[in-house]
Amino acid sequence: MKDLSSLREAYRQAPYPLGGHHDRKLRVLTEALEQLDPELDSDMYGKGEIIENFEHRLAQLTGKEAAVFFPSGTMAQQIALRIWCDRASLKRVAYHPLCHLEIHEEDGLKELHHIEPVLLADQHRLITLEDVKELDVSVSCLLLELPQREIGGQLPSYEELVAIADYCREQGIRLHLDGARLLEVTPYYGRSVAELCSLFDSVYISFYKGVGGVAGAILAGNTDFIDESKRWKRRYGGDLISLYPYILSADYYLTQRIGRMEYYYLKAKEAAAQFNACPATRTLPEVPVSNMFHVHFEVSQQELEPILIAVMEQSGIGFTPYLHATGEDSCYYELSLGDRYVDIPQDRLHEGFRLLDQALRELGNN
Amino acid sequence: MKDLSSLREAYRQAPYPLGGHHDRKLRVLTEALEQLDPELDSDMYGKGEIIENFEHRLAQLTGKEAAVFFPSGTMAQQIALRIWCDRASLKRVAYHPLCHLEIHEEDGLKELHHIEPVLLADQHRLITLEDVKELDVSVSCLLLELPQREIGGQLPSYEELVAIADYCREQGIRLHLDGARLLEVTPYYGRSVAELCSLFDSVYISFYKGVGGVAGAILAGNTDFIDESKRWKRRYGGDLISLYPYILSADYYLTQRIGRMEYYYLKAKEAAAQFNACPATRTLPEVPVSNMFHVHFEVSQQELEPILIAVMEQSGIGFTPYLHATGEDSCYYELSLGDRYVDIPQDRLHEGFRLLDQALRELGNN
Repeated sequence: MKDLSSLREAYRQAPYPLGGHHDRKLRVLTEALEQLDPELDSDMYGKGEIIENFEHRLAQLTGKEAAVFFPSGTMAQQIALRIWCDRASLKRVAYHPLCHLEIHEEDGLKELHHIEPVLLADQHRLITLEDVKELDVSVSCLLLELPQREIGGQLPSYEELVAIADYCREQGIRLHLDGARLLEVTPYYGRSVAELCSLFDSVYISFYKGVGGVAGAILAGNTDFIDESKRWKRRYGGDLISLYPYILSADYYLTQRIGRMEYYYLKAKEAAAQFNACPATRTLPEVPVSNMFHVHFEVSQQELEPILIAVMEQSGIGFTPYLHATGEDSCYYELSLGDRYVDIPQDRLHEGFRLLDQALRELGNN
Repeated sequence: MKDLSSLREAYRQAPYPLGGHHDRKLRVLTEALEQLDPELDSDMYGKGEIIENFEHRLAQLTGKEAAVFFPSGTMAQQIALRIWCDRASLKRVAYHPLCHLEIHEEDGLKELHHIEPVLLADQHRLITLEDVKELDVSVSCLLLELPQREIGGQLPSYEELVAIADYCREQGIRLHLDGARLLEVTPYYGRSVAELCSLFDSVYISFYKGVGGVAGAILAGNTDFIDESKRWKRRYGGDLISLYPYILSADYYLTQRIGRMEYYYLKAKEAAAQFNACPATRTLPEVPVSNMFHVHFEVSQQELEPILIAVMEQSGIGFTPYLHATGEDSCYYELSLGDRYVDIPQDRLHEGFRLLDQALRELGNN
């Protein structure tokens, strides 16, 4: 049996990866810089045209009074929650059990701020208005993630979102948006970034997901909130003397891709339909609501790996470099569609799915 | 009277700035990247060849078991102190009153970690062995900054340093080195980086001071200490998906400049002597011990500004873009010598100091 690293290797060798915009290589940065004047002045500890212009662009895009560039969303979001807790003199917030802060940050929120999270909903579904209404302790802030990445990028309806926002406003609960992938959901909602952000007191957006930049994030909100977040940014050591490598690349790829989000969304629906036509395969959500979804297989990781390796080698389509087992006989992976999808010749794509379908059928017949 | 911004403007216009390596412009980054293969793989959340090779290089340079790249020294140092406090179960550390953590970080150490600093010495002089011995409360860690930047970059003697390190080891006090400018003091001590670092349990070095990179820092120490610091780096949001823009430029300029530190040091002594020959002017230290020193004037900021503007305009030498008032009749600025000093034609340099001397003499005669 091939070892785990073979799946990664087969993916690397496949000329047509299904997901993403590009490999994460140095050229992602150099391409963004190559048309710029080398005499451009660096930002300096949060000041200067490069950072101020970009922050202004994002304040306008989100419809907020102000915005501040952060090296990471982890830093930006902890700080947002800390500020809302301080203002309410209550160190408790609510979020989803699979929130980034809960599972990917080594408990930074708890260790650095002693903020207690209340986990709403369960890890297989979205937070609903009912969940918020049933909170039996008070919280300073509710964090919603749009789309909810760890469950395939699901979304509440716009009406549910408005109802949650209205309820929070009535109750004096601040609403923070983990919008790491916010731009990617605007086509589904058919609403502008600013319209969606108007429901929230504070908003974070990432620049290396759908935007495809090098790294970095924005936090947007009222001027006093953003001013306070800048003091925390300095406390964290995030107020670097120069953030321009991230800002310039974020600006470049934002311009390039902000108009393509609808296209990525349509292609995700197309690809998901192809997966769902294969046996023992289903996507979550069944019909994607953004450029992303999860591909679940009712097949063990051990059985699926050699199949995927063979299909990738034969078709040239890079389905995935990894699988996560979800049980003895099931596994999944995450897929986010971007620029690379468009470059795949239709016959190759068709052949990739045909071979996958066939291999899974043969497996089912054994 | 010319306004404050004129000094900055005159400095910008001067073709021969005295200090630094280069303006902080985009080309600092693009020059570092231009010879590299655009197909280089990005680091990924602290993994990958770019970051691991550089960390290995710095572990070797500092003579420590391990090293980890941080986006900033602020983040690296707070984390180092937190770890030493946790290990001693004692949230108290000692450092200089003008320590970076005390005056430039919006109290991050206190706000994020509730660590209490004990301020040793007074703000006009270095910490001595006596100061450490006279501590009347216990501390987990002592932070020493070499050179002590805010007092002109002064240094204890090597013997004093060894005595402090010995005493701390006896007392179970961890010794952390704020070596933002450590490379710059090796010529004065006549000792290797590793030799100096061997006196300390943990070491931080910056890449945008004497090295002249874009941003970033290294923290070095024992493997278990560095592993723990990586968890905190993630908690802080410092474990970016890609840190390569900082790492590649740090690596490039470190290679370029690590051998020039002696030269910068010699030139600093030469320049300081020129300042000290002018009336009402003295450098701190009088004889520099690194590439940096402070230039103090017994003249009010208001009187000195038009003089400096005129001297800069006439000679083309950029003395300084700013002055800090230290009293009604005194002011100073900081100077760090680097690559730009070598490009100044000798006659220009001579003319700059001659005009400064003359203007200050005339002022004294009025």
